[in-house]
Amino acid sequence: ITDEHENYFGRALLNRLSEKRTDSKWLKSKQCCPSTVYILFSNLNPLVTSREDEAVSNKPAIRLCRLGLESVKGLLSLPGTTLIFLGVEKQKQITSPSTLKDGDDPVAWFALSVDDVPIKQIRQQHVNSYYLQPLMPGLLKLNEEEAGVVAQARSVLAWHGRYSFCPTCGSKTREDEGGYKRTCLNEDCESLRGIHNTSYPRVDPVVIMLVVHPDENQCLLGRKRVFLPGMFSCLAGFIEPGETIEDAVRREVEEESGVKVGPVRYVSCQPWPMPSSLMIGCLASAISTEIKVDQNEIEEARWFTRQQVVDVLLKGNQPSFSMPPRQAIAHQLIRHWIGVNANL
Amino acid sequence: ITDEHENYFGRALLNRLSEKRTDSKWLKSKQCCPSTVYILFSNLNPLVTSREDEAVSNKPAIRLCRLGLESVKGLLSLPGTTLIFLGVEKQKQITSPSTLKDGDDPVAWFALSVDDVPIKQIRQQHVNSYYLQPLMPGLLKLNEEEAGVVAQARSVLAWHGRYSFCPTCGSKTREDEGGYKRTCLNEDCESLRGIHNTSYPRVDPVVIMLVVHPDENQCLLGRKRVFLPGMFSCLAGFIEPGETIEDAVRREVEEESGVKVGPVRYVSCQPWPMPSSLMIGCLASAISTEIKVDQNEIEEARWFTRQQVVDVLLKGNQPSFSMPPRQAIAHQLIRHWIGVNANL
Ligand SMILES: Nc1ncnc2c1ncn2[C@@H]1O[C@H](COP(=O)(O)O)[C@@H](O)[C@H]1O
Ligand SMILES: Nc1ncnc2c1ncn2[C@@H]1O[C@H](COP(=O)(O)O)[C@@H](O)[C@H]1O
Ligand SMILES: [Mg+2]
Ligand SMILES: [Mg+2]
Ligand SMILES: [Mg+2]
Ligand SMILES: [Mg+2]
Ligand SMILES: [Mg+2]
Ligand SMILES: [Mg+2]
Ligand SMILES: [Zn+2]
Ligand SMILES: [Zn+2]
Repeated sequence: ITDEHENYFGRALLNRLSEKRTDSKWLKSKQCCPSTVYILFSNLNPLVTSREDEAVSNKPAIRLCRLGLESVKGLLSLPGTTLIFLGVEKQKQITSPSTLKDGDDPVAWFALSVDDVPIKQIRQQHVNSYYLQPLMPGLLKLNEEEAGVVAQARSVLAWHGRYSFCPTCGSKTREDEGGYKRTCLNEDCESLRGIHNTSYPRVDPVVIMLVVHPDENQCLLGRKRVFLPGMFSCLAGFIEPGETIEDAVRREVEEESGVKVGPVRYVSCQPWPMPSSLMIGCLASAISTEIKVDQNEIEEARWFTRQQVVDVLLKGNQPSFSMPPRQAIAHQLIRHWIGVNANL
Repeated sequence: ITDEHENYFGRALLNRLSEKRTDSKWLKSKQCCPSTVYILFSNLNPLVTSREDEAVSNKPAIRLCRLGLESVKGLLSLPGTTLIFLGVEKQKQITSPSTLKDGDDPVAWFALSVDDVPIKQIRQQHVNSYYLQPLMPGLLKLNEEEAGVVAQARSVLAWHGRYSFCPTCGSKTREDEGGYKRTCLNEDCESLRGIHNTSYPRVDPVVIMLVVHPDENQCLLGRKRVFLPGMFSCLAGFIEPGETIEDAVRREVEEESGVKVGPVRYVSCQPWPMPSSLMIGCLASAISTEIKVDQNEIEEARWFTRQQVVDVLLKGNQPSFSMPPRQAIAHQLIRHWIGVNANL
């Protein structure tokens, strides 16, 4: 019914098989499968390898280290280790179950978060591997499929790191359901009666929008103080409780730039695992043009013409400003507005 | 650029004025304004009044009790009381600031959550008032503007109720910034270094979708065991970390009904303050038709023809099933698909 836009971090390589999360016997058996893939994180940084040859040939310059049970066995029982079931690889072609042999079992993926101690051990076995640090912009060099897996794994692991105590009573919690639930250890806790979001990973919805001038030939971009010099991007902000996507767009644009927005149209979204946002990308039609930035959030905001934006996308003679890379939904929203789709 | 659909709980009566949340002097002065409106909650149930005359004339049958400072003064300092700044009423017409007199100051709204103790006191002053309990379906009888205010207030209050301990270290937290932040009282807590979502209210994005049959003449509706007998609605589910809206739709539909979905199109969204969801409404094109329900989540799912759905919307002669009321986004998605817009 529409063309969907896929963004970086948005590709689903795995079938999450959520119904298996409560099947601890199945999970245990998958953990021991020789084909099972383990990916490792330390301080929420994934263990990766660089492939020089690929860097040269303009292909993805880093890859996840895909480890087998042998490599991680020693880590599984260490304190401070968190194990997440990520899913199984989606079957490329539909095979009828009867023709599936045991060996054809889809490959399961787990994410493992380890403390600093065992890093050396792993490095001895995987010489070219290292924990990606700083995370950005290196993380954007994964291929699309691995980026999607990291989005899922890093968001869930970040939640475990920040939510190991029960927000309702302050007691410790334990990991459950393949890493998708935490259960309070205080038997009297209200969180154990009924279903409460305190037990489940958090996803923070954020609106990110390209504001289009009433003349339809200009768009509004802003820069935060922390951006690299000369970089401008779409405005963005957290959706608040009791708010629609469209109203959040109008509120955030007016707060940050003083520009009033009328109609809003959803375009596409992007999981952003820093730590666990869902960026909801929209086009927003301005109904006023005067800019008055909120100095706390935005250093500068400006209207840019289509031509100025195209010049930067084409990386023509020394562009006067820069925009986020193609892996950012902001870039894709701008490109969408320009109407340029492929190999620009 | 598109027609936006407004859903119940989605109307924004107030300008949230988020920049004022850190201005405690301004907040204090607004608290004392004679025009300021306080709304009360106990156990997350709003204080309302019924107006018999309106019930008869088919208008909204309940209203929020809008209290002044005099009525709530005694409650503000009680332990267990939470105060939220909701915003100021949006100016209907644009008045230039210079012509604004002091008395024209926009009306501020606060929400106050109180423990059971002081209820009687309030009742003595507001004879026809009561805490709406059970909340549903009564809450759907507010007018659209008050429903929007309740969506905001109830979601934020529910967060305070469930998140009064720091999830990172288990210490107590204190309320800040007009009720939109909680700060850990443990000086050594990591949550105090940098910005972390543990300090901010939670919004849980949920996908809710009408699945359309490949023949485009049927839609898929399901029923949970807890539904009233005969009621069918759209399928829905929580978006998971690292997942797009579109993939969450495909995953949840397949999990709950066994039906495979191809393209997904966003239609509209609805804040759902039970306790703090954002329902993201989509149309989903099925690419398979066989139904196999997940008995844990869904009791039954069926394809319904356009005609069957229209018959129920028109409440013709004894419909064979029922659908959610117009205040639910599920109802509006179905209506949207039927292509019936107004006074059906
Ligand atoms: N879930 C959240 N995570 C982080 N910051 C949040 C969150 N919700 C609200 N905020 C606040 O929003 C600010 C960023 O502004 P914005 O992204 O424009 O909404 C942060 O500095 C926080 O004060
Ligand atoms: N934020 C959340 N709040 C409540 N339940 C959740 C949440 N996230 C995941 N769940 C789980 O999702 C189930 C409901 O399924 P669904 O709405 O179809 O995703 C609940 O019974 C919980 O086990
Ligand atoms: Mg902002
Ligand atoms: Mg904001
Ligand atoms: Mg912002
Ligand atoms: Mg489900
Ligand atoms: Mg679910
Ligand atoms: Mg569901
Ligand atoms: Zn607890
Ligand atoms: Zn803390």
